[in-house]
Amino acid sequence: MSNLKDLGEFGLIDKIRRSVPKGKGVRLGIGDDAAWVDWRKESFLVTSDLLIEGFHFDLRWTSFFGLGYKALAVNLSDLAAMGGKPSYFVLSLGIPTIFKSDNMLQFLRGVKTASRQSGATLVGGDTSAADRFLINIALIGYAPYGPVLRSGARVGDDLYVTGTLGDSSLGLNLLKQPQRQVKKRAGISYLVARHHYPAARLRAGSTLARQKLAKAMIDISDGLLQDLGHLCKASKVGAVVWENALPLSPAYRSFAGTKGALYALTGGEDYELLFSARARARARLEKIGPKLGVPVTRIGACVPTAHGIRVLNKCGKTLTFPVSGYDHFRN
Amino acid sequence: MSNLKDLGEFGLIDKIRRSVPKGKGVRLGIGDDAAWVDWRKESFLVTSDLLIEGFHFDLRWTSFFGLGYKALAVNLSDLAAMGGKPSYFVLSLGIPTIFKSDNMLQFLRGVKTASRQSGATLVGGDTSAADRFLINIALIGYAPYGPVLRSGARVGDDLYVTGTLGDSSLGLNLLKQPQRQVKKRAGISYLVARHHYPAARLRAGSTLARQKLAKAMIDISDGLLQDLGHLCKASKVGAVVWENALPLSPAYRSFAGTKGALYALTGGEDYELLFSARARARARLEKIGPKLGVPVTRIGACVPTAHGIRVLNKCGKTLTFPVSGYDHFRN
Repeated sequence: MSNLKDLGEFGLIDKIRRSVPKGKGVRLGIGDDAAWVDWRKESFLVTSDLLIEGFHFDLRWTSFFGLGYKALAVNLSDLAAMGGKPSYFVLSLGIPTIFKSDNMLQFLRGVKTASRQSGATLVGGDTSAADRFLINIALIGYAPYGPVLRSGARVGDDLYVTGTLGDSSLGLNLLKQPQRQVKKRAGISYLVARHHYPAARLRAGSTLARQKLAKAMIDISDGLLQDLGHLCKASKVGAVVWENALPLSPAYRSFAGTKGALYALTGGEDYELLFSARARARARLEKIGPKLGVPVTRIGACVPTAHGIRVLNKCGKTLTFPVSGYDHFRN
Repeated sequence: MSNLKDLGEFGLIDKIRRSVPKGKGVRLGIGDDAAWVDWRKESFLVTSDLLIEGFHFDLRWTSFFGLGYKALAVNLSDLAAMGGKPSYFVLSLGIPTIFKSDNMLQFLRGVKTASRQSGATLVGGDTSAADRFLINIALIGYAPYGPVLRSGARVGDDLYVTGTLGDSSLGLNLLKQPQRQVKKRAGISYLVARHHYPAARLRAGSTLARQKLAKAMIDISDGLLQDLGHLCKASKVGAVVWENALPLSPAYRSFAGTKGALYALTGGEDYELLFSARARARARLEKIGPKLGVPVTRIGACVPTAHGIRVLNKCGKTLTFPVSGYDHFRN
């Protein structure tokens, strides 16, 4: 009898997917950023995320407001990755009884800020006592131009990402350092803000879907290489990524030190979009940044599966990594 | 600054409800068994429940299969209480890494059993490591005859419940007793099964909605008196309940001992339906049991708010209780 550590998070999800029959009305079930189902003559998207204190966040360096904001933002990011738009969400909370009601009101203000910015409406949920703070949001939305799946990439496609990579995990790393080491410098607060307030790329996602530019798309939550792995697996392609093409913020370049592009390649919680596009769309994508509200950078290309997923440095040498990203049951 | 223990679970929910603006398309927001929202020219119901190991269940006396079954059943019960029917659900899991994969497959078998029985389809979710087993289900469904709210009762209405009351909490109580005291008797296994495998009254709920018989409805999850309190508050009525009218199973009568009707009045997790109906429907409701697939019992009536909520014993004397039901932040 195998244990979950051997099976891994994605092994378990595979097992679940294989054991669950695809039900009536299900256009897209387990395995993408959100599910896509029929609703009478319409359809909707639905996604769900559970955040656990001590596993996904730490109240020593996270405010209740920030946590509320982020709890919704990570779900919004899942819809953005489908080219979708949000409508309604339900919020389940497990709350330590030692919390003050003011803590919860601050948390709620964070949720409402992300809610107002995105147009998602809180409609219900559940509250319970707990010994750690637990937050589950299930978000329902729609795909006005049809959802963009992980499986639409093909060999020869270009690979792009929105924004800059690695800021969030580098920011978290700086937060974890003893206070004396972290001087209050502008660059650091930028990186920390990127960790606390991820920008779900809703406008970028839906614009890329409307213009039929993104052929396969995923949000980068577990690290570029790992999420690229999911996209490649679903699309049955391999990929090459050029290390020196990775978009890194000035703050990242100042503070990454000897780690170089490591956070950008394997750090989690970027909540930027990774997508593939046909090579013929290259000219359009080069100038699309302003329309998306965020820069877009070509970082690689899709290759035959047999070539695997490789990162090349500026000399064309393949880089290797001990771990490509986050697995909840292994890390 | 008040803490949550003073505010209580329902105080917090009230605060949340007051602070969240009722968004566009929201027909019914926070505060009923499920939310009811517009979806293009259609609408849907959505509800969410978080189950936490050590707070909602104990793996010492709960099987993984039973837990999977119950996790979905408690959500189905919320839809039943609106007269609704289930369609899709998303499942978020926080899983201790020491669990075996076989544990999770058993859990999933339980989920799938409740899923097949009810017609609800698993379409996605989230998995993560945790130090306690955490289960969140968000369930989406519809109300073919319009949802039955908590707020439709008026003075003079009769009050009814489906099935029998108190079995589940008495069953849990017997489970908690040291093994030597619990002899394997048929009655005990009946009560324990009622605790582990609650029957979400989907058929009863939707039939009562279709026939316009239930005017206000709620499922009994926190104990009859407490859930009656919610229904009364939403409907702005008081209530009288006749102790000797309460439907008690033969097993309950055998094992409740000196506690009498206490479990039936204040014990949680019955997952039966409590509803109000106009007095003129009494004749129809007396013979409706077979159509609902479960007996229906008249247990009281709605009275003016000023009279409060009272339980009368067979001599007409008002009974008092130290605690009327479950509050997650106080118990």
